[in-house]
Amino acid sequence: MSAKKPLNIGLIGCGFMGRAHSNAHAKVSHFFHNLAYKPVLKAICDVDETKAKAFADAWGYESVETDWRQLIARTDIDAIDICAPNNAHHDIAIEAANAGKIILCEKPLAMNVSEGKEMVQAVEQTGVANMVWYNYRRVPAVTLAKNIINEGKLGRIFHYRTMFLQDFTIAEDLPQGGPGLWRLDASVAGSGVTGDLLAHNIDTAMWLNGPITEVSAMTETFVKERKHVETGKKQPVGIDDASLFLARFANGSLATFEATRYARGHKALYTLEINGEHASIFWDLHDLHRLGYFDHRDESVVRGWRSIHVTDHDQPYMDKWWVPGLQIGYEHSFVHQMADFLRGLETGKPASPTFADALETQRVCEAVLESAKTRQWTPTGL
Amino acid sequence: MSAKKPLNIGLIGCGFMGRAHSNAHAKVSHFFHNLAYKPVLKAICDVDETKAKAFADAWGYESVETDWRQLIARTDIDAIDICAPNNAHHDIAIEAANAGKIILCEKPLAMNVSEGKEMVQAVEQTGVANMVWYNYRRVPAVTLAKNIINEGKLGRIFHYRTMFLQDFTIAEDLPQGGPGLWRLDASVAGSGVTGDLLAHNIDTAMWLNGPITEVSAMTETFVKERKHVETGKKQPVGIDDASLFLARFANGSLATFEATRYARGHKALYTLEINGEHASIFWDLHDLHRLGYFDHRDESVVRGWRSIHVTDHDQPYMDKWWVPGLQIGYEHSFVHQMADFLRGLETGKPASPTFADALETQRVCEAVLESAKTRQWTPTGL
Amino acid sequence: MSAKKPLNIGLIGCGFMGRAHSNAHAKVSHFFHNLAYKPVLKAICDVDETKAKAFADAWGYESVETDWRQLIARTDIDAIDICAPNNAHHDIAIEAANAGKIILCEKPLAMNVSEGKEMVQAVEQTGVANMVWYNYRRVPAVTLAKNIINEGKLGRIFHYRTMFLQDFTIAEDLPQGGPGLWRLDASVAGSGVTGDLLAHNIDTAMWLNGPITEVSAMTETFVKERKHVETGKKQPVGIDDASLFLARFANGSLATFEATRYARGHKALYTLEINGEHASIFWDLHDLHRLGYFDHRDESVVRGWRSIHVTDHDQPYMDKWWVPGLQIGYEHSFVHQMADFLRGLETGKPASPTFADALETQRVCEAVLESAKTRQWTPTGL
Amino acid sequence: MSAKKPLNIGLIGCGFMGRAHSNAHAKVSHFFHNLAYKPVLKAICDVDETKAKAFADAWGYESVETDWRQLIARTDIDAIDICAPNNAHHDIAIEAANAGKIILCEKPLAMNVSEGKEMVQAVEQTGVANMVWYNYRRVPAVTLAKNIINEGKLGRIFHYRTMFLQDFTIAEDLPQGGPGLWRLDASVAGSGVTGDLLAHNIDTAMWLNGPITEVSAMTETFVKERKHVETGKKQPVGIDDASLFLARFANGSLATFEATRYARGHKALYTLEINGEHASIFWDLHDLHRLGYFDHRDESVVRGWRSIHVTDHDQPYMDKWWVPGLQIGYEHSFVHQMADFLRGLETGKPASPTFADALETQRVCEAVLESAKTRQWTPTGL
Repeated sequence: MSAKKPLNIGLIGCGFMGRAHSNAHAKVSHFFHNLAYKPVLKAICDVDETKAKAFADAWGYESVETDWRQLIARTDIDAIDICAPNNAHHDIAIEAANAGKIILCEKPLAMNVSEGKEMVQAVEQTGVANMVWYNYRRVPAVTLAKNIINEGKLGRIFHYRTMFLQDFTIAEDLPQGGPGLWRLDASVAGSGVTGDLLAHNIDTAMWLNGPITEVSAMTETFVKERKHVETGKKQPVGIDDASLFLARFANGSLATFEATRYARGHKALYTLEINGEHASIFWDLHDLHRLGYFDHRDESVVRGWRSIHVTDHDQPYMDKWWVPGLQIGYEHSFVHQMADFLRGLETGKPASPTFADALETQRVCEAVLESAKTRQWTPTGL
Repeated sequence: MSAKKPLNIGLIGCGFMGRAHSNAHAKVSHFFHNLAYKPVLKAICDVDETKAKAFADAWGYESVETDWRQLIARTDIDAIDICAPNNAHHDIAIEAANAGKIILCEKPLAMNVSEGKEMVQAVEQTGVANMVWYNYRRVPAVTLAKNIINEGKLGRIFHYRTMFLQDFTIAEDLPQGGPGLWRLDASVAGSGVTGDLLAHNIDTAMWLNGPITEVSAMTETFVKERKHVETGKKQPVGIDDASLFLARFANGSLATFEATRYARGHKALYTLEINGEHASIFWDLHDLHRLGYFDHRDESVVRGWRSIHVTDHDQPYMDKWWVPGLQIGYEHSFVHQMADFLRGLETGKPASPTFADALETQRVCEAVLESAKTRQWTPTGL
Repeated sequence: MSAKKPLNIGLIGCGFMGRAHSNAHAKVSHFFHNLAYKPVLKAICDVDETKAKAFADAWGYESVETDWRQLIARTDIDAIDICAPNNAHHDIAIEAANAGKIILCEKPLAMNVSEGKEMVQAVEQTGVANMVWYNYRRVPAVTLAKNIINEGKLGRIFHYRTMFLQDFTIAEDLPQGGPGLWRLDASVAGSGVTGDLLAHNIDTAMWLNGPITEVSAMTETFVKERKHVETGKKQPVGIDDASLFLARFANGSLATFEATRYARGHKALYTLEINGEHASIFWDLHDLHRLGYFDHRDESVVRGWRSIHVTDHDQPYMDKWWVPGLQIGYEHSFVHQMADFLRGLETGKPASPTFADALETQRVCEAVLESAKTRQWTPTGL
Repeated sequence: MSAKKPLNIGLIGCGFMGRAHSNAHAKVSHFFHNLAYKPVLKAICDVDETKAKAFADAWGYESVETDWRQLIARTDIDAIDICAPNNAHHDIAIEAANAGKIILCEKPLAMNVSEGKEMVQAVEQTGVANMVWYNYRRVPAVTLAKNIINEGKLGRIFHYRTMFLQDFTIAEDLPQGGPGLWRLDASVAGSGVTGDLLAHNIDTAMWLNGPITEVSAMTETFVKERKHVETGKKQPVGIDDASLFLARFANGSLATFEATRYARGHKALYTLEINGEHASIFWDLHDLHRLGYFDHRDESVVRGWRSIHVTDHDQPYMDKWWVPGLQIGYEHSFVHQMADFLRGLETGKPASPTFADALETQRVCEAVLESAKTRQWTPTGL
């Protein structure tokens, strides 16, 4: 019998993220052995009961709910994990906070800054532990990048550039709305690639390089109308298909950000590069287990970009997995984040990003959308 | 409640492979939903009881054994999964077969062909389902390679080349023997890189390209003596540190095989390339989610090696995981193999490689070691 | 004896570009055999006579001048090749045009649009053949990209992104001015990376993707003061160290442009990518003999980015060089441009980019600098 | 007027190599300024007079010969550069030596060891300067590899592996013989890929890693009969289409060598890798301006293969060319070799490889062909 304290999870939403989080909860104790807490898959909640039951069967959830208010009302649930679409985050989070539940929320935090502020207020007033699933911070190569920066290896930073390129919405006959494609429906998603993709870039960027102070952005909707799956009719597309911006960080460095779902050939190419006085770093989600590193202090004739295969036991999180040379994948970033969250519960030092951290990303997203509309450089307030 | 039939697993050995297999058993039902069987982690067995208990706690095994004969004797166990060192495979497998257990055995099958033959005989006489964990066949990119070959896209095959390069035993003060380093002790491992690494290359090669008929090999032991962890004394090293061979396949193609633990800079670089009349394929374990593909029939001015990011839902096994662009890792090959094994139990069409298949790889390994000794071209008998 | 007509060249400036152009003139007839004209290295001109003489000796120039007006006055010179710093282009070009000389001018065309307009006017009024050395169009991989686009393989264009990253001015003690470092002196160079690097990106971009209509830019001078080599004193640095802009093309596509001399690890990383409805293209000066190409119409399971090794005889210019697999380098782009120019003389169809073409690039550069100053989206007038 | 001493060249053979060598002679003085000698293109010799005249016209050769004996007899010729097919090397070289000419000979030295010995004897007896064009030693990245090894950075060497893969003879209807395809005719070429391709691998390998002492080889002729262009009839193919061997070096390291013209997708993929105790090196002709370098002494968490872009002025030969980031190509290796040869004439320290050096490569080639025939490990005699 395990001596670990159970953390009873109620998870809302059986989609892609529901699976990613459930996998994290199921696996974390297999690989992280010294944690005081152990997640228990107590309840799955989805408006679609059939789907929820199948999900419970596959993952071993002990019970099924179809109304998230019921789930929150249950006294046997310690933590609510929100994997519902963006427009549901606010209400669920506030009710969960008021019920004293721990809250894990899929990104982006909210539909906009205004909602986000209320959510932060709710968790701060009630004092519940909270976290937003900006999972890419916990890809070992990205964590390694953070460590390298923290050690001062880069020196003064001059440039940051980052992209998130996809190509899955190029077809004009792709509809908007519904379980699979709610990200194309502005009323559910809030925004397009700005909130869906750039939010990731922004979260990582500010974690690695500090606050973004101002932006100049442009957005575009290439396909102006798409059939809505609920109405069956062609409706204007309200989201941004592409979003690009120039930025200045508080540390004086300059940046380009770009996200699109119209970059043929790229499935989920999230890249980031940071150029410092002494060294540079490059990372790319399509080969997430590698980190590019260039150190100008290397002997000149043998200097070059290093391709670091981040699978050694002295590299972040990798002592928990296999042996050097054997790579892990996308899902492991969630396992790492859950491990860090559990450790935070234990030590009282909350794992980041908290709701408050995620609100800063939300501010930048909002400044981007504002700048694209006004065609003006826009301060983020950070 | 799941309607699936439980498959009660008794797993022997808490090392690296014990974890890899346990993970496969734990995860397979989460992601493969239409299987009739579901593995249950019934019992873990290890001579080291403390280790076994900790392992059971981490993974949720229901019980612990320290004597594999006891484990096999249990009537609540359906399948024995052998993750013990190579020199234990033979006895365990034969006893398990005689007890009518399903047998999953880590590779290589046995210490030598003679042992292997007896094991094949045992499973064939008793009719128990059996499989050897040559997991690399189930890396999606490798399975895709197999599909491409089966479709005839390559045409006549001219060349096969494959390597497995590591660098972890270069330090002369690394000892031999013990839980971590039994692979350096010939009495436990049988051979060095030939059985540990080349066996993988050979298994994949014959799966993709048919039987190897003859070999000319050379082996080397670079560090001649190492302290044995059990005796504390320097003892001759009996294993091959490096093993290289030329080969001819039954289909007329020519090959080079090379494995070493002295290739500085390579942690587990398993590569394979196959050149056909019309097309070629390249794969590399360090970036296992990619497949290189060159098709000479492409329009000439835009012809080039394609780097296929094997993460789409129409690529092998990938509909079970995430979304395009999000890679999986090493461990998933075991999950896939377990899924295929369970499907085989259900359909009565055994998943490969069976013990009989693995015996063919053993034959080639033995011919390689023989050729290195005699310095003669050596037939494999295949 | 060659039946070719001599084209007597008078070249001004013995620096890096003087060598690159001289090499083109010397080599073009060795490899391009069916041209009616053959360049003759008639005279080299430089204010530094010693340098000019040594240059003449190395390259076989028949004579030496130290005053470019003298050179232009010579009746045995057919063509003036301007490799002098940017602030000399205007006067030389206008005098050469008035003297009826053919003019080849290193990029950028001029210090600004106003100068550029006068230069275009001069060549158009006098009717002299003219060309600006935006050499990257003639890198075979880039020409191949142009051909692919012209064939319509990409379909509707959504995105263009391009960078030119260097790191050679990071050291704060690097001085400005003088033969080697006039590019850091605004009074000689006109601008910093905008005219030196981005001008290349803009020229190629508009050649491949049509006019840029508006831009939003930011520039930065990271090191504010540098010692001037002529005065020996610290002086404000007037050039832009980094220049980034968002752009919209007339065809509706969106773009990011970035150039800097502060991107540690990149020596001359000129990259470009273009994403169309059906296909995408990527190129990178650091591996200039390769073209990345992704075609979504490829069979889905074997679809991937192709790395085209542009060395086959059916690829642009490559029938003139070696055999497949053997790459050419940077200098060859100049040879190709000279071959095309000579062919243009012969056929009466001028090779691009002419002065008029280069003026369009100048307009975009000026809009970029203007936008960076005003912090407004700025139309280019194209 | 140049103060350099003219070195009057008589070059035999207007094919691919005739062009590569002529280019070296024409360019070397443009870029290497401190040499005492300057090649002069005095005479071109080819049995096909029309071809020779056109060649002279393109390259500026002062005169034309159609009989190489006539050429050698001329007193105004200092050096004979042999670019004729392999079966002509021996007779030309011996006559040239006897005439006291400097001799530059395209590789391989000879048809076999016996011829090679006589050639070495001839140049040693007559004392004429001599060199064989194993040009790949002078690719800057390869020279850099040599420097790194000479500095002891690698430590004890364990492994060497090298390949030369092409795919241009896969089509069965490709004929043998004639100017373009004499390499497929054993009576002219001596051997197939062993002498044409592997000879390069062997030369570089022994230069970098010392003598090869024994080999075990296999060869294959995939297409057994091809039409001969001279007879118009199908004739047996006498050359080896593929040649693979295992080898042992005198320093105890193990190696694989492979060459083929049946590796679909590879045009001229000459690769080499060397693994030492502390560091490893990788190079690849398809990206000849890069060197892969791994140094285990780098800090562990940021350790990785470095991709060195060999274009800096402190890297071999690169101070003679452009600026960092701008790559050179295949042809430059010949320019470098000629520069070194001219320097050797000046200093009296002959540039390698001399005829005597090339004879050692010939010995290994012969041992390889012998081993393939006898199916035995074969000593090279080195």
